[in-house]
Amino acid sequence: MYVIIVYDINVERVNKVKGFLRKHLYWIQNSVFEGEVTRSELAEIKSGLMDIINKEEDSVIIYRLRTQDAFDRKVLGIEKAPIDGII
Amino acid sequence: MYVIIVYDINVERVNKVKGFLRKHLYWIQNSVFEGEVTRSELAEIKSGLMDIINKEEDSVIIYRLRTQDAFDRKVLGIEKAPIDGII
Repeated sequence: MYVIIVYDINVERVNKVKGFLRKHLYWIQNSVFEGEVTRSELAEIKSGLMDIINKEEDSVIIYRLRTQDAFDRKVLGIEKAPIDGII
Repeated sequence: MYVIIVYDINVERVNKVKGFLRKHLYWIQNSVFEGEVTRSELAEIKSGLMDIINKEEDSVIIYRLRTQDAFDRKVLGIEKAPIDGII
């Protein structure tokens, strides 16, 4: 399955979240990661994030799509992380 | 069609982008909007954003999904804008 993860994290923890997600997904833009994952990888990502974030302050949204064909992506302005070549 | 819009905008323009998108979509979290739109609404959103952003500095990603069923959303931590009741 394909996931898009966006987050709104307190500045004290945001680099830790970014570093963690970089091990699993592609950085797209500030607070946005994407990538293909298996069920177990997604479970690992979720539990890893839950260990880092403060559940009262921070917010992470995981959009889960069956496949990458389920959406298309249009960029206005600059493409911060040209990903087309990677996927 | 359903869209998820995420953006990374210079602080000088970010409130203008947020104010513009609030007229068309639901605010979900910092730099994240969602909503159901028609083709013409999406065209209006794109051209409105292009009028506001600096194409050399700012970045807006528009994820376009055929329908809202094409994905599911999981929130870790706090839900900044409880949207389930709205959609």
